[in-house]
Amino acid sequence: MPTKFWEAKAGRAFVGRLATGSDLVEEIERFCLEREVTAAQVTVIGAVRRARYAYYEQGDHRYLELQTDTHHEIAGFVGNISLRDDKPFLHAHATLGDAAGATVGGHLLRGTEVFAAEVMIRELGDVSLVRLPDEATGLALW
Amino acid sequence: MPTKFWEAKAGRAFVGRLATGSDLVEEIERFCLEREVTAAQVTVIGAVRRARYAYYEQGDHRYLELQTDTHHEIAGFVGNISLRDDKPFLHAHATLGDAAGATVGGHLLRGTEVFAAEVMIRELGDVSLVRLPDEATGLALW
Amino acid sequence: MPTKFWEAKAGRAFVGRLATGSDLVEEIERFCLEREVTAAQVTVIGAVRRARYAYYEQGDHRYLELQTDTHHEIAGFVGNISLRDDKPFLHAHATLGDAAGATVGGHLLRGTEVFAAEVMIRELGDVSLVRLPDEATGLALW
Repeated sequence: MPTKFWEAKAGRAFVGRLATGSDLVEEIERFCLEREVTAAQVTVIGAVRRARYAYYEQGDHRYLELQTDTHHEIAGFVGNISLRDDKPFLHAHATLGDAAGATVGGHLLRGTEVFAAEVMIRELGDVSLVRLPDEATGLALW
Repeated sequence: MPTKFWEAKAGRAFVGRLATGSDLVEEIERFCLEREVTAAQVTVIGAVRRARYAYYEQGDHRYLELQTDTHHEIAGFVGNISLRDDKPFLHAHATLGDAAGATVGGHLLRGTEVFAAEVMIRELGDVSLVRLPDEATGLALW
Repeated sequence: MPTKFWEAKAGRAFVGRLATGSDLVEEIERFCLEREVTAAQVTVIGAVRRARYAYYEQGDHRYLELQTDTHHEIAGFVGNISLRDDKPFLHAHATLGDAAGATVGGHLLRGTEVFAAEVMIRELGDVSLVRLPDEATGLALW
């Protein structure tokens, strides 16, 4: 797909924390569903008890799943909310740091368990971001 | 503590740079104190001369301090301002890259010395984020 | 240069995606030139086919260029737009994750090729960020 930009209006801003033991991805999606947030920018600072994440094999068009059961700090985070199958979908990538400061990172999956997480959600108004299959990349893109 | 979100109003936006040799955490907190910023989202792009950071031991409820005296690029950053002991407190996690591109990351501490740093502070209005001790995690949370 | 902050007004917000095969830095700068975005906060989530990045040698005042021709996820990103030589200039640092989750990071250069990239640009109004040579660091700073 070609490069494309949409102009958005600033929407609502939400700041919150996630319960210890909750699923990072599901908990943010649940909140967005409840408050009808369908397009937003999301950032998280905190730590996880374990992480499920992935690397996308660009040639094979499939996600390679990775995991760590060690506690990690969230040392970097970029995320957004769009609609996938008519529901708010969190697309998030994170960098995670361990007890020695060593880092790993990738595309966050369900199964990433929160120890503590402070979340910022900045809604984007006047845009409709709907994920649809993209043949060239094999991804669901807007 | 359970998951909880607050709706905030967009407040002031500040963009700035930090002096070479200044303490990254203290300098941002000093600015926020001066301008009475008590809730905000913060990001930084730049490089440090040395870093003091930490990993939180989730079982033992204590920070394990880490440090590097090598120059690093700030390759990822997530941060926020809230009130702790009645003063603006910067909670920031960062990923740092060295001359080979290798990265480390964690919770930034005082003692992280700026080489160059470009800072964005987006204030959150109509919310009060006050850090208080949380027994379950051992952290000061809002 | 001493610490300095400017108060900005919230400007336009743009959300977009970059074409597969495009140059991450050039494509964002081209869009900003076209829409006359001269000061902004930028974040990206996505993956790259290859990356050109750099580490700044703080003592020698020169960039050490690094590169990887392996596919990577963008696991962390901080960026901004300012004016350099009268044109929108993207200053961006990123953390990149490989198939094993291992990360590298630094200052992004032209030559970083997009596989998929979702971009948020938040314009800063009422400020003029113009990069000029800074003798102390050897960098072009605002």
